[in-house]
Amino acid sequence: MAGTNRFAGRTVLVTGADIYMGPAISERFDMEGARVIRDTGDYADAEAPARIIAAAGTVDVLVINLLPVKMRRCPVQEVSEEAWQDMFAALVHPTMRFIKAVLPQMIERREGKIVVVTSAAPLRAIASAAAYTAARGAQNALVLAAGAEVARHNVQINAVGQNFVYGGYPADAMDKPEIREAVLREVPSQRIAEGWEQAELVLFLASQNSNFICGQVIPFAGGWVTTG
Amino acid sequence: MAGTNRFAGRTVLVTGADIYMGPAISERFDMEGARVIRDTGDYADAEAPARIIAAAGTVDVLVINLLPVKMRRCPVQEVSEEAWQDMFAALVHPTMRFIKAVLPQMIERREGKIVVVTSAAPLRAIASAAAYTAARGAQNALVLAAGAEVARHNVQINAVGQNFVYGGYPADAMDKPEIREAVLREVPSQRIAEGWEQAELVLFLASQNSNFICGQVIPFAGGWVTTG
Amino acid sequence: MAGTNRFAGRTVLVTGADIYMGPAISERFDMEGARVIRDTGDYADAEAPARIIAAAGTVDVLVINLLPVKMRRCPVQEVSEEAWQDMFAALVHPTMRFIKAVLPQMIERREGKIVVVTSAAPLRAIASAAAYTAARGAQNALVLAAGAEVARHNVQINAVGQNFVYGGYPADAMDKPEIREAVLREVPSQRIAEGWEQAELVLFLASQNSNFICGQVIPFAGGWVTTG
Amino acid sequence: MAGTNRFAGRTVLVTGADIYMGPAISERFDMEGARVIRDTGDYADAEAPARIIAAAGTVDVLVINLLPVKMRRCPVQEVSEEAWQDMFAALVHPTMRFIKAVLPQMIERREGKIVVVTSAAPLRAIASAAAYTAARGAQNALVLAAGAEVARHNVQINAVGQNFVYGGYPADAMDKPEIREAVLREVPSQRIAEGWEQAELVLFLASQNSNFICGQVIPFAGGWVTTG
Repeated sequence: MAGTNRFAGRTVLVTGADIYMGPAISERFDMEGARVIRDTGDYADAEAPARIIAAAGTVDVLVINLLPVKMRRCPVQEVSEEAWQDMFAALVHPTMRFIKAVLPQMIERREGKIVVVTSAAPLRAIASAAAYTAARGAQNALVLAAGAEVARHNVQINAVGQNFVYGGYPADAMDKPEIREAVLREVPSQRIAEGWEQAELVLFLASQNSNFICGQVIPFAGGWVTTG
Repeated sequence: MAGTNRFAGRTVLVTGADIYMGPAISERFDMEGARVIRDTGDYADAEAPARIIAAAGTVDVLVINLLPVKMRRCPVQEVSEEAWQDMFAALVHPTMRFIKAVLPQMIERREGKIVVVTSAAPLRAIASAAAYTAARGAQNALVLAAGAEVARHNVQINAVGQNFVYGGYPADAMDKPEIREAVLREVPSQRIAEGWEQAELVLFLASQNSNFICGQVIPFAGGWVTTG
Repeated sequence: MAGTNRFAGRTVLVTGADIYMGPAISERFDMEGARVIRDTGDYADAEAPARIIAAAGTVDVLVINLLPVKMRRCPVQEVSEEAWQDMFAALVHPTMRFIKAVLPQMIERREGKIVVVTSAAPLRAIASAAAYTAARGAQNALVLAAGAEVARHNVQINAVGQNFVYGGYPADAMDKPEIREAVLREVPSQRIAEGWEQAELVLFLASQNSNFICGQVIPFAGGWVTTG
Repeated sequence: MAGTNRFAGRTVLVTGADIYMGPAISERFDMEGARVIRDTGDYADAEAPARIIAAAGTVDVLVINLLPVKMRRCPVQEVSEEAWQDMFAALVHPTMRFIKAVLPQMIERREGKIVVVTSAAPLRAIASAAAYTAARGAQNALVLAAGAEVARHNVQINAVGQNFVYGGYPADAMDKPEIREAVLREVPSQRIAEGWEQAELVLFLASQNSNFICGQVIPFAGGWVTTG
């Protein structure tokens, strides 16, 4: 897995660089020679994304990697208004703000890549995670719509719809016995993926080799979801 | 299309009864003998859904039918923060609040039907409608997750993912020449559906004959989207 | 569930009337006043479908309900050439032949309904059933393509993508303990559907109330598969 | 696009190496240092795949790339029995035979990659191509089922569901004015992809970097189809 300098001279901005898939993705872009801007900001502020993008200058690749502050599994009827709003504030609204902030420069250059790390949850229901699933579904639908819209400018927006990845969400879940049992029973690959494997898909979607792929949510879940 | 009293003795609450598919759906349930509560409230207030459900008493069928206050088509990077938040406030958050408000009584009775009128947009991208598509995608994902979760209580939550329906959204769009051209070119049925046709699908999903269908977004768009 | 004569004066031809969902579907159409032609022919003969349709005269509704002669679950690499060909000969080729045989009269009348009883298997992989899944996938794709093509003639072709239905396939599977366990674990409805419930979906798709639904595979599996 | 020897020491067998995406894919694997076996056999013979695999010895990557002998667009009711059978004989049956032939060695080594070049047609209906769509749908469903089944052996089977690619099918279609118009109107990327771009996706799916992706049909169509 030695790097081959595929992203030399490219600037990659990774949001949430210290959470979720941020560390694995940042490290992998490093290895490929990219200039990686590891953003670890607080995205509660609606102005933050515009400021962060402005400060970054040219952004060739934007990886939108976001997590809820906390997630408590509970029946749908017990999700509090606050938990619901927090979920959308953490996942959905910053996604839109980052896309809006970076698109003008990408459209002007007629080149750019946005990869949103989302979830496979909206592709196959997970019990007791209604708010999370709805918010991830909003991200996925936004990727589909915005991706189809800006493809004509040679800007590609895609999502990785993941599950069962180390470093994934919730961070400690992957070591729980019930997750391991679920993996053996429900995940055709019968294992949990390493973070670098997920990062490889992000790199592929961020490269000039995937310019014809746009507006897609690519499942990354060991066969747990099916598409096609 | 004479009614056959299929919903005699059942209480059906229709939100947004005066907008979108509300009139067609309410009328059709009337014809089938239901007691129809036509709610025309303002759902900006986060407390409204709980109040409306409490006032209604027993609700056998809840039809969640919501529209954005206004929709201006524009490129994704030009969607204002306000327009984005308004879209989610109009479509997404009330959907969750209504579901939360009505579920306890349905779960206790071990019987209930929720039909959410959404859109086919998240199943096939529409240009310049990113906010709308993302919000409809959130609704669809919520239906999927909540529907899978409460099916064990004999409560069925499904959505109608519609497009190209008279009375649909935007209300005046269906008469525009460019929509008619699009219909001939893109919609296999080559026509726009009447409101009552959409209502028939809602009735089917609200009836005891569809209890094994849950957590689904059923496309209603003349073949414009494909699933399967 | 008393009938309401919804199909009075309509001729409904059900293939495989004595197998799979044939009995439940035929009975339900009877109750609704249809003239039901219960075909129990051998469809190995490539000429059979044309003969059967010609003999039937006007067919308002054609229900294509087919089963493999036998199915042995085995790893994909152990599926014999014969078993593979038998599967396509039983499920796929007769579907096309029946569609071809009945379409001319339906297109000429500018009215007709074809409902194909298939499976949810191509929407979510089932282990050790590669041939079955591939054949059901061919049926589903044919419904999609042919359904989109003939919708302009006011002929609607749809499929029911089912699983976990009594009378379903394999016929004795539903009583096996491992199926019951799978139902509790994997099927949100946590039960197996009765045949009449599936028939109700077929009736809806065969009625004049669903004319705007075409080229779709509607899942009928208690939430086991998700679409949207 | 200089190669980086990513497939040095790997044997890649490409079927139909002189047709469809065969040339582009073979060339791209060459550049990456693979030993490429360009098979140009006639796959009408049911025994051919087993013979070809046996003669090849160790096959690390199998690319199943098949085309119908000819394709005449016509209404579904005019597809001849012969044309239908030819389509399945060309696309579907050899796919299964190749998978069966190569799986035992891959399962024994606990390592292997199968990439099937199919079509996006079953993900979005194309008029007058019912037989082609049904056959591609059968391939896609087989990939889904077999892919889910053998993932536990660390063998990954995936498909590329493509459309609008130079060298694609039909070979001369991409230069037709009506295709160019359709591209501008229906394909978000507003262009036709080069063969090497498609090959890059095949390479990604054939690499050790995508081991957690299995049983998927990855759309490659410039946003013409949506998934997720």
